[in-house]
Amino acid sequence: MKETRTKPTSSDVAVRDRLLAGAAELFTRKGYNGTTVREIVAFAGVTKPVLYYYFRNKEGIYIELIRAAFVKFDALLDETRKERGKSIERLLRFSDRVFALFMENIKVARLMYSIYYGPPQGAPFFDFDALHLRLQEAVRSLIKKGIRQGELPKGNVEDRVWIILGAVNMAMEVNLSHPERAIDRKGFVRILNLILRGFQQEGRR
Amino acid sequence: MKETRTKPTSSDVAVRDRLLAGAAELFTRKGYNGTTVREIVAFAGVTKPVLYYYFRNKEGIYIELIRAAFVKFDALLDETRKERGKSIERLLRFSDRVFALFMENIKVARLMYSIYYGPPQGAPFFDFDALHLRLQEAVRSLIKKGIRQGELPKGNVEDRVWIILGAVNMAMEVNLSHPERAIDRKGFVRILNLILRGFQQEGRR
Repeated sequence: MKETRTKPTSSDVAVRDRLLAGAAELFTRKGYNGTTVREIVAFAGVTKPVLYYYFRNKEGIYIELIRAAFVKFDALLDETRKERGKSIERLLRFSDRVFALFMENIKVARLMYSIYYGPPQGAPFFDFDALHLRLQEAVRSLIKKGIRQGELPKGNVEDRVWIILGAVNMAMEVNLSHPERAIDRKGFVRILNLILRGFQQEGRR
Repeated sequence: MKETRTKPTSSDVAVRDRLLAGAAELFTRKGYNGTTVREIVAFAGVTKPVLYYYFRNKEGIYIELIRAAFVKFDALLDETRKERGKSIERLLRFSDRVFALFMENIKVARLMYSIYYGPPQGAPFFDFDALHLRLQEAVRSLIKKGIRQGELPKGNVEDRVWIILGAVNMAMEVNLSHPERAIDRKGFVRILNLILRGFQQEGRR
């Protein structure tokens, strides 16, 4: 497999992004094993050497797709950790940003669902469970802080983590499955507010 | 393909169930297309004619797996529709039963997730979206009734539907993905109660 190192002249980012978008689409639609480099380059409207230049091979383009999503998510976690202010507001902002990140990367998210729930497709391993555990831990940490700071009544932390994550997951999955009746970002924030107000009332019965 | 119509003598139900369980397991692990009749019968410890006798072929066993799940779910919907009493209690009981049904059929549920989110595997079509729409509609109808009967404050119905379904989905998915840290039926009811109390408090701020 000859690797062409001649740098493409026109709009590198656009070409690279087109390859990534095409690969995400095809991996989801046909499976990782069922997708060829030929199909990806045809989809992106480039030649094979262009794919080899940017990603070396099919595995390289898959790794870049998923790795980039992990990096963005971890950056969001870091950002949240550094924030100060009311835990409830931080939790709301964090959940909103997780959802926004998902929506901005919905093609990759769809691929991740396909890899995670679908039969093994021969794709390189990524630890999606670890990613979700970090998401859980971020929510848990903010809820605990909220309780310590008196913003939330004492009570079962885990149950509240699952309710928040349930809303996050639902908003994501309805956008994967039924975009026509989907929850948008505004609706999602409204839902989270409803949940959080419920938590705050819990002590006052 | 010769079809043997000689009825197996020993424990029909057990043999049939073993074939179904084996098929669900293998379809999930290797994909529908990637699974052969030979593998299914080996897994179940029977011969090919036994599979042909009960299900005719691979497609027949898949259809029976999914069809049975749809039938059970629709029976649950019918049962719920006929019930009388407080809407909140009916909603709680219904959600609990949906979760219990899922847990009792978790191998088929896992297969359904794999078919729904995974790449096309050549399996006969079932309308999983329609199933989920019926679930949504049942929850929506009970929430509306709860509002009409003054058990729940007026307010956005859809947001509350999503919160309930988010909890249902989360409980299901954590059992698919992390059975070791899973939400059990008791925990799930506790979570639902927490959500519903939050809804009930909503009017009183």
